[in-house]
Amino acid sequence: MARELTLQEIAERVKGEIIGDPSLIIKGIQPIETAESGYISFLSNPRYKSKAIITRASAIIVSKETEIEGKNLIRVENPYLAFAFVLELFHAEDYTPLGISEWAQIGKGCKLGEKLSVHPFVFIGNDCSIGNGVQLFPGVSIGDGCVIGDDTIVYAHVSIYKRSRIGSRVIIHSGTVIGSDGYGFATDKGKHHKILQLGSVVIEDDVEIGSNCSIDRGTMGVTIIRRGTKIDNLVQIAHNVVVGEDSLIVAQVGISGSTELGKNVTFAGQAGAAGHLKIGDGAIIAARSAVFEDVPPKAFVAGYPAVDNMKWKRAQITFNRLPEFREEIKQLKKRIEELEKIVKKEGG
Amino acid sequence: MARELTLQEIAERVKGEIIGDPSLIIKGIQPIETAESGYISFLSNPRYKSKAIITRASAIIVSKETEIEGKNLIRVENPYLAFAFVLELFHAEDYTPLGISEWAQIGKGCKLGEKLSVHPFVFIGNDCSIGNGVQLFPGVSIGDGCVIGDDTIVYAHVSIYKRSRIGSRVIIHSGTVIGSDGYGFATDKGKHHKILQLGSVVIEDDVEIGSNCSIDRGTMGVTIIRRGTKIDNLVQIAHNVVVGEDSLIVAQVGISGSTELGKNVTFAGQAGAAGHLKIGDGAIIAARSAVFEDVPPKAFVAGYPAVDNMKWKRAQITFNRLPEFREEIKQLKKRIEELEKIVKKEGG
Amino acid sequence: MARELTLQEIAERVKGEIIGDPSLIIKGIQPIETAESGYISFLSNPRYKSKAIITRASAIIVSKETEIEGKNLIRVENPYLAFAFVLELFHAEDYTPLGISEWAQIGKGCKLGEKLSVHPFVFIGNDCSIGNGVQLFPGVSIGDGCVIGDDTIVYAHVSIYKRSRIGSRVIIHSGTVIGSDGYGFATDKGKHHKILQLGSVVIEDDVEIGSNCSIDRGTMGVTIIRRGTKIDNLVQIAHNVVVGEDSLIVAQVGISGSTELGKNVTFAGQAGAAGHLKIGDGAIIAARSAVFEDVPPKAFVAGYPAVDNMKWKRAQITFNRLPEFREEIKQLKKRIEELEKIVKKEGG
Repeated sequence: MARELTLQEIAERVKGEIIGDPSLIIKGIQPIETAESGYISFLSNPRYKSKAIITRASAIIVSKETEIEGKNLIRVENPYLAFAFVLELFHAEDYTPLGISEWAQIGKGCKLGEKLSVHPFVFIGNDCSIGNGVQLFPGVSIGDGCVIGDDTIVYAHVSIYKRSRIGSRVIIHSGTVIGSDGYGFATDKGKHHKILQLGSVVIEDDVEIGSNCSIDRGTMGVTIIRRGTKIDNLVQIAHNVVVGEDSLIVAQVGISGSTELGKNVTFAGQAGAAGHLKIGDGAIIAARSAVFEDVPPKAFVAGYPAVDNMKWKRAQITFNRLPEFREEIKQLKKRIEELEKIVKKEGG
Repeated sequence: MARELTLQEIAERVKGEIIGDPSLIIKGIQPIETAESGYISFLSNPRYKSKAIITRASAIIVSKETEIEGKNLIRVENPYLAFAFVLELFHAEDYTPLGISEWAQIGKGCKLGEKLSVHPFVFIGNDCSIGNGVQLFPGVSIGDGCVIGDDTIVYAHVSIYKRSRIGSRVIIHSGTVIGSDGYGFATDKGKHHKILQLGSVVIEDDVEIGSNCSIDRGTMGVTIIRRGTKIDNLVQIAHNVVVGEDSLIVAQVGISGSTELGKNVTFAGQAGAAGHLKIGDGAIIAARSAVFEDVPPKAFVAGYPAVDNMKWKRAQITFNRLPEFREEIKQLKKRIEELEKIVKKEGG
Repeated sequence: MARELTLQEIAERVKGEIIGDPSLIIKGIQPIETAESGYISFLSNPRYKSKAIITRASAIIVSKETEIEGKNLIRVENPYLAFAFVLELFHAEDYTPLGISEWAQIGKGCKLGEKLSVHPFVFIGNDCSIGNGVQLFPGVSIGDGCVIGDDTIVYAHVSIYKRSRIGSRVIIHSGTVIGSDGYGFATDKGKHHKILQLGSVVIEDDVEIGSNCSIDRGTMGVTIIRRGTKIDNLVQIAHNVVVGEDSLIVAQVGISGSTELGKNVTFAGQAGAAGHLKIGDGAIIAARSAVFEDVPPKAFVAGYPAVDNMKWKRAQITFNRLPEFREEIKQLKKRIEELEKIVKKEGG
């Protein structure tokens, strides 16, 4: 795995401009604070330029306008993106298909692609279609009639219920459940009768889902996670939710039934949304916030219930001073009483 | 699976009154907005009657008082319940037992019922009792001395620790853990010594538990989920909790140790309760609320910490206007000072 | 399992002083309210002394200063700790190694200790080191290059990703995931590019982790759970987090990336912390609180965002009286207007 690359080779990958020696040999990428000589680092925020001046790294990836005297630089538009690419240059592992373990169980009528890695204790039901280059880690369970696209990675103990459709280049981490029944009951005289959950789940291409998430199937239609969306751990996606393209759903978020998220929506950690809402394109829901009504596109909301982020911040700052206000109101009252006594007396 | 039924047959199942043609052939049930001709739909909320007027559905299940000109109707007391029944009429799958996979492992001294479906990679410990018609999906793990009642369905990768007792017609979704150790430690000079968790878990009949839930065993006694309760995904039930009959526990709720819920209690999404509390029959805990003291029967509480819902709502509305109040108090202060100057001068 | 011990034997184990008959035969330990004759119980809080007076228990473990007339007592410094020890005296099961199941799959180049219990459907990758006395329950999955210390217990369906290092006497409950990828993406023009997660996870000795937790691997360095820390269920630990020694992380807590907890930190249930924070030694974060800035050692914080607990409590109490304040401000305004009218008239 020990690769060595020239600054020139790295600059080509990240489409950057070299300031310094293109033939410099680079052994890897390291964080700017702890980088050693021979390594490249990156500075994504020009505010931390002082770190770049004292780093021992032999080269630094910086943004276009950044100058650092006496250092080898690669200037790029987005240093953090370049960091992602350089990590891959040095560390992306070649994929070696392991084939299908004798300890896996595959149902009837399945179409299996090439270059698979199907580990021991994997269960695949009947009539499934598994694309090329798919990796199924130990104990993955896939129900009848599922479709999984090319180069998708499903880690250990993921449970995929019947008729789920997973795209290509999807990554699903351990313990996540795709297609469990939505939470639907008709209550009659205090008893809860199950509404059969007949729909399914669609996960589009290039989605990544963290560990121990729950994504329920639709009641009659589908629950959809659209292309490019990234979901963190322990997230709840209820039945018939639609998550738009390229959205970010951070850990422990819960989205209730039939709520629809637009494109590029962000739900920060531990946030939540009630059911049947529309969250507009580009909206940001702050960490721990709870959304109980529609959110317009590009809005940034916070609080419980969530309101405009600036509005919430102002209210929240005031909140901690509430006891002072109580005291002030008390004092004002006294002063008014005093005034009233005097004025009345005079008036009388 | 393609069934066809007459309006008469459907009306009989839902104990409804037909307004229209009893011999009408119905091919299935669809949502009112997207229903096609030949299908039946339902209108649970008379407010949306306009949808029922323009739907292409050939028949509609409505509540007793509802009239819709020129449509075939079935009038029932609870249209949503009727919807649940009609879904079953059309879609309930006949259960075909698969028997016991050769790739399952079953311990010594187990009593196994008839008509089982035990999938590959299921593990059953010693001295377990498994009822008739039980379905154990791939990778289910059941510890020693467990009891599982008739017709219970346990989905993939559910872990059931030793000595758990699960009733009949229970449904447990993937990734859920029943009977893990409660969180109990005796702290001495900063070190935490484990309290052995010697109790167990009882799940009564007709309970449904979503995916990736954690239900801990009692420390000495039992943790109980009573008959008919429905639990959503990613829910935490701590040691020695009692959840009363026919309760609803929505996704990502957490109930702390030894708290007891009465019958028909509702915890909405992401709510929580501290330990050693009593939550009365029929109480409702609003979404995202945190309960830190006992809740009387039929109370509806909200907030952090939770108080009467109307009280919380009024305070919450005011909360967002806090910066205005601050400004108003400031202005009042000025005006009082002004008054004081004048009055003092006059008085002087 | 039915053991009988003398009061003398119990007192020796808990280093206590006997008040009463050392030769008294004790059959077990039971809660003070429900204890039967022949059993010992404990009183951890002297406030509940009345329970100790009427209990049917034959002996009671009490704190040093406690006197209860006519009862056999064992006096100790920490009765709750003594309770933990006495539970073990009566109930600790002797460990009988089951060996390695023929239904387990073990990779190449592994070093396996003695006295193992490797259940069916366990998967161990290549080049792992498994210590003595390790118990791996059904369906545990361990990636390549992992190390597991002596006497560690890993329950069913735990997923341990490659290169994780788990200490000795660690307990990990079912469904927990160790070493899944951290949530790291470089966003460029609305698309999210994965940052390879190349680091790993270290779990030190004597840690206990509940069920369905997610502990992500570091991006480049490590995520560390230090010695003696106890984690409850459904907890999220993000990449590069450090949890200090002997900390308590209660159910459904989420700690964001690169946040560092000192020693003996407590996060109560459903609390959360933003990323890149320092939480000082001995700090306590109240249930459901959300920390958005550094917390000094020994601080006790609460709220959203979290502030000093007493400050939050005072503000919170006032919060519920906000509508009253609104009314009071209104009234004060009227009275000021009245005064202004009078004073102006007089002044004019």
